[in-house]
Amino acid sequence: MSLSLNQWTTRRWSLAEAVDGCVRHGLEAIGLWREKVEEQGLAQSVKLVRAAGLRVSSLCRGGFLTAGGLPGEEGRTAFAHALDDNRRAIDEAAELEAACLVMVVGGLPGVRPGEALPEGFTRDLAGARERVAEALAELAPYAGERGVKLALEPLHPIYCPDRAVLSTLGQALELSLPYPEEQVGVVVDTFHVWWDPRLAADIARAGSRIASYQVCDYLHPLPADVLLGRGMMGDGVIDFPPITRAVQAAGYAGDVEVEIFNADVWAADPDEVVATMKARYEELVLL
Amino acid sequence: MSLSLNQWTTRRWSLAEAVDGCVRHGLEAIGLWREKVEEQGLAQSVKLVRAAGLRVSSLCRGGFLTAGGLPGEEGRTAFAHALDDNRRAIDEAAELEAACLVMVVGGLPGVRPGEALPEGFTRDLAGARERVAEALAELAPYAGERGVKLALEPLHPIYCPDRAVLSTLGQALELSLPYPEEQVGVVVDTFHVWWDPRLAADIARAGSRIASYQVCDYLHPLPADVLLGRGMMGDGVIDFPPITRAVQAAGYAGDVEVEIFNADVWAADPDEVVATMKARYEELVLL
Repeated sequence: MSLSLNQWTTRRWSLAEAVDGCVRHGLEAIGLWREKVEEQGLAQSVKLVRAAGLRVSSLCRGGFLTAGGLPGEEGRTAFAHALDDNRRAIDEAAELEAACLVMVVGGLPGVRPGEALPEGFTRDLAGARERVAEALAELAPYAGERGVKLALEPLHPIYCPDRAVLSTLGQALELSLPYPEEQVGVVVDTFHVWWDPRLAADIARAGSRIASYQVCDYLHPLPADVLLGRGMMGDGVIDFPPITRAVQAAGYAGDVEVEIFNADVWAADPDEVVATMKARYEELVLL
Repeated sequence: MSLSLNQWTTRRWSLAEAVDGCVRHGLEAIGLWREKVEEQGLAQSVKLVRAAGLRVSSLCRGGFLTAGGLPGEEGRTAFAHALDDNRRAIDEAAELEAACLVMVVGGLPGVRPGEALPEGFTRDLAGARERVAEALAELAPYAGERGVKLALEPLHPIYCPDRAVLSTLGQALELSLPYPEEQVGVVVDTFHVWWDPRLAADIARAGSRIASYQVCDYLHPLPADVLLGRGMMGDGVIDFPPITRAVQAAGYAGDVEVEIFNADVWAADPDEVVATMKARYEELVLL
């Protein structure tokens, strides 16, 4: 397993700067975000990562597939729009030769990330989960034809209302099973799954379905904006070695991305962040 | 199923006032808190609820059993102290003829609810879960001899660091299985479990192990103090009928407690809160 910088960890850096940073710190891989790729231009982004000899460990992110659960025309339009956007994300992942496209599947239909509950959202959680399965049936073959693997990311249940109705690794795994594992895999992100009493068993069961292993810590108490509760390894409550051991035993030999959303980390000098990340990774995550 | 006021919902009321409030609003049951019982005195509390003809649907709470995971003497002392306190809680539940004693099992050893991570806490989540099982082996027979049922409450994973390493209904159920169901049951609290993709299956599996059904809504976004994210039914994201239906189909015919921790609810006139609670319960929770 080899360390990869998810570029949201050094959010102040452009894609070009993050690529340079990886090279400067001796990293072999980078996790990219679509916003940053768009800023840089797709063709230029491809050129930069190739010239630097970096692997693209993932592209973040496709998903937000649940709005089809809204009633009538609004739902149909939203679903079609989501499929279009995901096809574009798949095309981008193909161009970048990303190891996978991370899928954050979306929350309750009509609920927007981080915002107050709007009029007309729906509480039908089971229905939202069915919408995800339906969208996957459209997108998996499209991804397969382009050599892209969709990586279903279960998110911490705190994000169930607004970001992902996919809440456990077991649930992600079951969603993936109808498809060849080259088309659909799962993400193990320590922040999201560390608490799960079935984690070890589900990692073992996932085996070669594990498309990405992402690490960061879970801060306690969480900050007021819970999206920013991801911390540098060692700053929170997660015991990494048992999880790393399980992921390795399951056969995962890909890159390990560090993806941190955190106001203090974003405010710090990105070079120092990468240096700390490397040190903490070796001390706390590697076996 | 019959509505019960968990007295923390009307936290400004003393036990005597809450008992009066239940009678005034035609409720047949009340969920009590140890702090309020102590304030009123145990004997007087027993007298008040009996005179009012109220059932005690639960006593909150026992638990916090994980500190034994701290190293050496500190751990041993903390474990012994926790067992003593839980035996007292069981004695109180017996006196009150509470339908169950709710068990909030505790978080990572050394982490205090809502507080910053202290020096010397432990990240050994699996170990903390073993401590809970060990404590239960001590406490279940003691409870059984006194006719008290321990009700294991899985808490939302957001509370895993500091309040409960018991995070899913399935996990609670498995912990309960070694004991007769008169001794150890489980709590289904909508706030804590609404997101769980295995919820319907685990409620069915729990069957007569369900010792308490508690309802309140899950607010979104959560307030800065996540403990206060419990809202009046209808103010959040939970779709109650599927959960009520599953709990009923599992055979639960006990009281349904409304337990709300919420700054606005606590600031409101308790009589209005109870009136709203009754209306929302009939509109949104009852089938």
